[in-house]
This record gives sequence, structure tokens and C-alpha cells, in this order.
Amino acid sequence: MTSSVPAPLRDAYDPEAFRATAHALMDQLADYLKAALAGGAMPVLPWAPPAVNHERFATSFPEEPARSDAFAALMARVLEGSHHLHHPRYVGHQVTAPVPLAALCDAVSSLLNNGMAVYEMGPVATAMEHQVLAWMASKLGLPASARGVLTSGGSAGNLTALLAARQAKAGYDAWNGGAHAGPPLTVLVPRSAHYCLARAVRIMGWGEGGLTPVDVDAHFRVRPDALEEALANATRAGRKAIAVVASAGSTATGAFDPLEPVADFAQRHGLWFHVDGAHGAAASLSPKYRAQVRGIERADSVVWDAHKGLLMPALVTAVLFRDGARSFDAFSQEAHYLFHGDGDDARPYSDVGLRTLECTKEMMPLKVYACLSVLGTRVFEDAITASYDQARRFADHLTAAPDFELAVAPDCNIVCFRHTPAHVPPDGWDALQVRLREALVTSGNFYLVQTRLPGGVYLRTTLIHPLTGDADLEALMEAIRSAARP
Amino acid sequence: MTSSVPAPLRDAYDPEAFRATAHALMDQLADYLKAALAGGAMPVLPWAPPAVNHERFATSFPEEPARSDAFAALMARVLEGSHHLHHPRYVGHQVTAPVPLAALCDAVSSLLNNGMAVYEMGPVATAMEHQVLAWMASKLGLPASARGVLTSGGSAGNLTALLAARQAKAGYDAWNGGAHAGPPLTVLVPRSAHYCLARAVRIMGWGEGGLTPVDVDAHFRVRPDALEEALANATRAGRKAIAVVASAGSTATGAFDPLEPVADFAQRHGLWFHVDGAHGAAASLSPKYRAQVRGIERADSVVWDAHKGLLMPALVTAVLFRDGARSFDAFSQEAHYLFHGDGDDARPYSDVGLRTLECTKEMMPLKVYACLSVLGTRVFEDAITASYDQARRFADHLTAAPDFELAVAPDCNIVCFRHTPAHVPPDGWDALQVRLREALVTSGNFYLVQTRLPGGVYLRTTLIHPLTGDADLEALMEAIRSAARP
Repeated sequence: MTSSVPAPLRDAYDPEAFRATAHALMDQLADYLKAALAGGAMPVLPWAPPAVNHERFATSFPEEPARSDAFAALMARVLEGSHHLHHPRYVGHQVTAPVPLAALCDAVSSLLNNGMAVYEMGPVATAMEHQVLAWMASKLGLPASARGVLTSGGSAGNLTALLAARQAKAGYDAWNGGAHAGPPLTVLVPRSAHYCLARAVRIMGWGEGGLTPVDVDAHFRVRPDALEEALANATRAGRKAIAVVASAGSTATGAFDPLEPVADFAQRHGLWFHVDGAHGAAASLSPKYRAQVRGIERADSVVWDAHKGLLMPALVTAVLFRDGARSFDAFSQEAHYLFHGDGDDARPYSDVGLRTLECTKEMMPLKVYACLSVLGTRVFEDAITASYDQARRFADHLTAAPDFELAVAPDCNIVCFRHTPAHVPPDGWDALQVRLREALVTSGNFYLVQTRLPGGVYLRTTLIHPLTGDADLEALMEAIRSAARP
Repeated sequence: MTSSVPAPLRDAYDPEAFRATAHALMDQLADYLKAALAGGAMPVLPWAPPAVNHERFATSFPEEPARSDAFAALMARVLEGSHHLHHPRYVGHQVTAPVPLAALCDAVSSLLNNGMAVYEMGPVATAMEHQVLAWMASKLGLPASARGVLTSGGSAGNLTALLAARQAKAGYDAWNGGAHAGPPLTVLVPRSAHYCLARAVRIMGWGEGGLTPVDVDAHFRVRPDALEEALANATRAGRKAIAVVASAGSTATGAFDPLEPVADFAQRHGLWFHVDGAHGAAASLSPKYRAQVRGIERADSVVWDAHKGLLMPALVTAVLFRDGARSFDAFSQEAHYLFHGDGDDARPYSDVGLRTLECTKEMMPLKVYACLSVLGTRVFEDAITASYDQARRFADHLTAAPDFELAVAPDCNIVCFRHTPAHVPPDGWDALQVRLREALVTSGNFYLVQTRLPGGVYLRTTLIHPLTGDADLEALMEAIRSAARP
């Protein structure tokens, strides 16, 4: 045998070239971070229409290696043109300004590329995943027998939980038998829940009726007294209800459903109780706000996005099962013969691929484990408490202002409101909010989003950046007033 | 309003602390990379049983920040204890030794944390995703109208493609109507295909019969003449077949199904034609081996893992649709009303969240775009050609050796074989391979895997590391001989 590796391919792995490029990049990133955190002249979102960015990054990739300064130049363009979540005036979607240490962990994870499907392919990561999940479960008050997995986002996480619920509660082998082996199934879901639950039931072949909506109150929290009616509706529609979902909290307004009465209802009817805590399970970290998730310890399954409430970059979602054995239910039915086909007949329980939608996945637990170990847990508790406190102060401030209207008192760090200046009649308020948001976002001064509630269109803010100050929110109100002036 | 951010939380974002930590880490990573690439005394997998690693990383996370050297110390333990995919004697699962530049890109991606569900949340990343997908589609010979998405792994990718197939071919609105609105569905899948296809149909509620197996030949390639029979089997079982899948290549042996006759069959019967090219679609990059995937340009959908054939860290999977409009079919049916609920009534086509299982996802395209731009495309072509060449040389070498038996001539860079020394009778060969693999892996000298084929247990290697030399493979054969000696 003879072999020869082409020089450019060998060069792509050169450790000293890597070292030099890495150091230069880290200075770029540190400078970028400093500028973004300072805010100042940097826009939050350097707004440009899709066509403009498509044009800017249009390329026919070169065949040969580029000049040595090409990487730094490209990264400079990426840093300049991207959305600056570390700008303190980012108050938009529930995506964090991650702690920078986590980004470094992702470089380690990506270099090591330990895929984790089987223990051998990620021995350290597998051990860390166990530790991270145990810590999260203990914070929620789940029993020591709780187990789970980390997966690629809340949508995959909620699907995973519902697959386990299906297997546990369908009353037939839904995994191998398929939908036609039994009656159509459904799950009771508050009308304010995230859209991924409606997707999950459609993916599973339950169709539109696979989700039975449950009415919510004026605070957008599920009405416990509406659960029986929803169950009756499901039955009337020829559906077997297998699970009930509660949000902690909801996406649009951050409302936390009352978990204890939902747990009681689930228990009474033998239903699986799933809590979508993607955003709000992190409330369990805060001594002050832990009561928001009272009852979560009774859930059969919980989804918790570390990239929302734990200051991590996307994606790292925990799916926790109170009964550890259930953590195999979503996917493992086939494992006994399918994994068998690959010749590994006796895989230990520590092979996380048996329990996740992914086969190969990233070393997701590394950043969580390292940041908890190095920064300490109090930082994460404080981040929750501080952001929830700030949302309440902001809400008070909005309520006190005659030209602003709070949609609803905030349960967490999401605050929805609208500007209602005297010079605009009420039938012009919806159009005004849309126009205001567009003006603020395209100018780059702030990033916030909007949502349609029964009362109309509202501006929507998530106070998710720990360094967003009250002064930023006062400036936001002033900027809104200014943009609204005729 | 008054606010105060606790000092440790503020410190967690300090750019100068980040800079110092980052530089130190990059030296650690460069030193690690150098040592791993050199191989030498470093074990490939520093084998320890799960319980040992669980013990090593057991922790009750501290409340307060750790000492300033804690991060470096922890990363040293992670680097030491993880699986060293950059060791040239890693010849195991289809997980790459990624080009180090990609790991740096992931640090950028994770710091920026541009979530991409909507264009505003990742303006640069969205543009880059379009470019990367267009390049991949053009390499496959798909028409310019092809579109797609990047998603979190081949399992999610194959599920996404089958959801689109279901919507296109079920003959009823499977998304909203659910499985009970029509006959049970099935998809024709070669017996050698990846287990995630069997999972995908079970997730969709089709059960075991949702996958109709198609026989393969002695080379583990699908038998085109078995397709009609499989279709008849499906019909007899009361199933409506909607799609046919081909592998390029299969997981166990890397066999490439003949795509043209499968395409003809799909066309004749009006079936969706899906190619699982997770591992082997990258053959399209190599002028020498492009013929392996002839016919892939006729697929309705293709899955291609950049973390297999494009030297990227996991996870970055392309799902490509020849008809661009189909790229919305997997998930978009609900978008018109569900996304509506969030108040954004007119989302542009550039919102990738409409087309992916994920809502928020990572800036997946960044590393692919940057590495293609900076390293040039030829490096990736060369990596494919060189690894496929090397597999053929290795296979010849094994064939020439009287005490080794090649399972099948390799189609790509996967080589399965067994050691058959004269002193072990044939009925001891299966146990021998298992013992040999365990000996080699736990000693740390090599990392390889095993698979069960009709002929018995075989050792399985993937020559996926560009710097694995022929001498490493000769040493592997010697190490196997040595371990087998009585």
C-alpha cells in the first residue's frame, strides 16, 4: 500500500496554523463582545433585507485555498452583519446572549466531535450528560429515579416526550402497531402553548384533532375548569386522550399554567402529564420565583431549554422523565433488534442514542457542565431572579405611563405591551405597533418583536440579556414615543 | 426603575476575562491537536467503563465561581478523557476528525447565537445556508430550482424528507387529517438501510409495516428486481406505498444502491424517490467516484451529512428537495395559522423555521460556508477521493492476506473484514472478532467497530480521517494478528 495526502488537505489540519488562526480569532471575538456589550453606536440588528444579505454572501466557492487573511476577513463580515444578541438593547425573542465561556466550550466540543450515540463515542460527554440532567431534575424536585436526555431543541424535545407518552398510554403498541392499530389519539394542550406541540401531533400522524385545545383565562393561563370540557370534546370527537400538557411558560406572554390542578386532573384520568418548560422551567432555580413552577415535580415529563433559561447558546434541551425507565420509551422499542443489526448486542444503558431522536449528536452537556462548574450555580439563579424582577419593574413603569398599556402582568421575563398615544385612535393601535416595531428594528436602536393577542397587536419583549438595564427599557419607551409622534 | 446586576453575573460576561481564557484555551487545543495527530503514545480511546467516568465527573456543582484555573483544569480532563478522533488510528464509526477551522467557526456561531428560526434572528446565517445548499445541490446535479434546509442530523433529516413525501403522495391531507383519514402508508426501504428510517415511520405512526423491506444482493445493494415484489407485498398487506428509499451508502458496509433503476421504478409507480446519502452523497465531490451516485440527480429528496463527508463537526445535515416548493411541505401546512398566532402574518420565504423540525437552531451553515471559502473546495474533493482510494488499497491488502477475509469489496471508505487465522476453527470466528475488537479498543491502540452480516461478525472500519496512512492500516492488521495469537 502507498498513500499520499495532498498538501492542502494536510495543511488544513496543521496545528500551528490552527493556533495562529485561533489566537487571531479570539481577539476578534473579544473585541466584538466588548463592543456589543457596550452597545453605543453598534446597531442591535444591522437590518438589511434578505435579498441584500443574499447578494453580500453570494459566492462560487473557490477551488484552491484562499489567501491567509481570508478567514479573518470573512469572520469580520459575519460579526458585523449578524444579529448582536449581546447588545443590551436586544429584548426580542427568547434566545440568550450566551455566557461567552459557553462559546469556548463549543469550540472544544466541535474539535473533539465526540458524537455520543454510543458511550464509546463520548465517554466524558456521556458522564457529563448524566450529571447535568441529575442537577436539572433535582432543581425541579423530580425524584432521584428521574432520567432523561439532551436533545436538539424544544421542538425535538416535546416530540420526544409525546412519543414516550404515546407508548405509555395509547393502550396498544403504537410504536410497532402504528396509528391504525387503535383509536385516534389526542393530547390536551392549552391554546397558549407553543406551535411545536401542534407540529408534534401532526408528525405523529394524529392530524389536527391530535391536539385538543384547552381554554385559557384572561392571563393566558390554562383554565383548570376547562380541562374536563376539553376531555369531553376529545371523546365526542372519537379521540382517546392520552396526555395533558401545561406550559411553563407560554411563548407569547410567558404565562405559567397552574401546574398543580393540571397534575390533579392528569392523575384523576390516568393521563400522562407533560410540562413544556422550555422557557420557564428555569424559574425553579430562583428561590424567589420557584413557586411559578409549583407542581412541576409531579410531571411525567418536562422539557427545559438550557439555551433559554441557562444562558447557553442553542441548542441544548433537556427532556426529563420522572420515571427513568420511561426515558427509553420514545425510541427504544426498536433498539433491541435494530441496534442488534449492527452487531452490538449488549449496549449499556449509557448509550444515549437509544433515547434520542439523534443518532450522532454534539457534546451538548459539555458547556452546561463546564459553566455550572466554573461560574457556579448562583450566577444562573441570579440571572433568573434579576430578569424576572426587572420584568416586574418594567411592567409597573408601563402601567404608570398613561400612553402605554400592559397586556398582562408578567409571570416571568416576557413583557407584552402597546403604545397608545392620545393622538392615535384605538382603531389605529394595531397598525401603530407594527409600524413602531419596524421603525425601531430597522433603525437598529432596539430589537423587539410583536404578537397578536385577543386585544390586538402588542409589542413583545423578553428581558433575557443579564446586562440589559432599566435605563435601556426607559430609553425603549422614549424611542417608541418618539417614533410614534406625528 | 432601579436595577443592579450581581457582580459574578456581570463578571461572567467580561470581555477581557473572556480574551484571556480564550487564548489559554486555544493553546490547549492546539497542543492537543498536535499530540492527537501525532498519535504516538496517546491512546485513541482512553477506555474506561461507564461507571468510572461517571465517578470521575460526579459533582455537586458549586454555588460560587470557581478558582481562576478551574476552567483550564477541567478542559484538560475533558481533552484527556475523550475519544481522540484526530488520532490517525481512529478508524471507527462514520464521525469525522473535523477540520480544526470548523471548530473555530462553532465558537463564532455559539457566541453570536443567531437562532435562524426567522430571518431577522440570523440574517447572515440565512444567506449562507442558501449558498451552502445551492452548492451541495449543484454537486448532486439537482436542478437550480432545488431548495432545502440544514437540520440537526441524518435522523431528523430523513424524517423531514419522509414528512414531505407523506404530504406529497399520501393522496389525502396526512398533516391535518392524520393517519386515520386514509389507508395505512408504507415506504420501500432496502434491508441494508440505516435504522433511523425504521424509526421515522414509527414516529409518524405507521408502525412496523410502515417500512416495507426490499431485498439486497450479496453486495448489500438493493436488488432492483426485488422492488416490484416489495411493492406487491405492501399492497397485499393493505398498505399504500408512497415512497422508495435508496442508500448512498448503507451504514454497515457502505454499499451504494444502484440509483437509476430505483429512480425508474419510482417514476413508473409515481412514488417519491428519497436517497439517504448521509454518508455517501459526498461521493459526488470526487471526479473519480462520482459515478457511485449516478441517478441521485433524479431524487425527490436527498439527505447529506456534512459531518460525515465534508469533514465538519456534528451536526449539520442537508435535506435537499429537487422541487424547491416541496421544501415547505414537511412542516409548513400549519405555519399559515400557527405562525400567524405570533403576529407575524407575512413571513418571507427566507424564514428557515418554516421548513425545519427545529424552531431555533444553530448557525449551522457558518462552518461549511467558511471552510469551503477559506480551504477551497478541492480539499474536500481530495479527501473523498483519497479515502475511497485508500479503502480499495486496504481491501486489496486484506484480500491478499491468507488470514484475513474481506466481507465485500468497498464502495466507499467503509471496509468490513474478519481475521481468520488457521489456529481458530470457523465456528470460533465470531467470538474471535468480538474479542479482538475489545482487545484493540480497550488497549487504546486502535478504534474500530464491528457489525453482524449474514456471514457472521465482521470488524468494521471507516477510513474517514484524512491523515490515516496505509502504514496505520498495516499496523492494524499486525495488531490484530498479535492479539489473536494463542
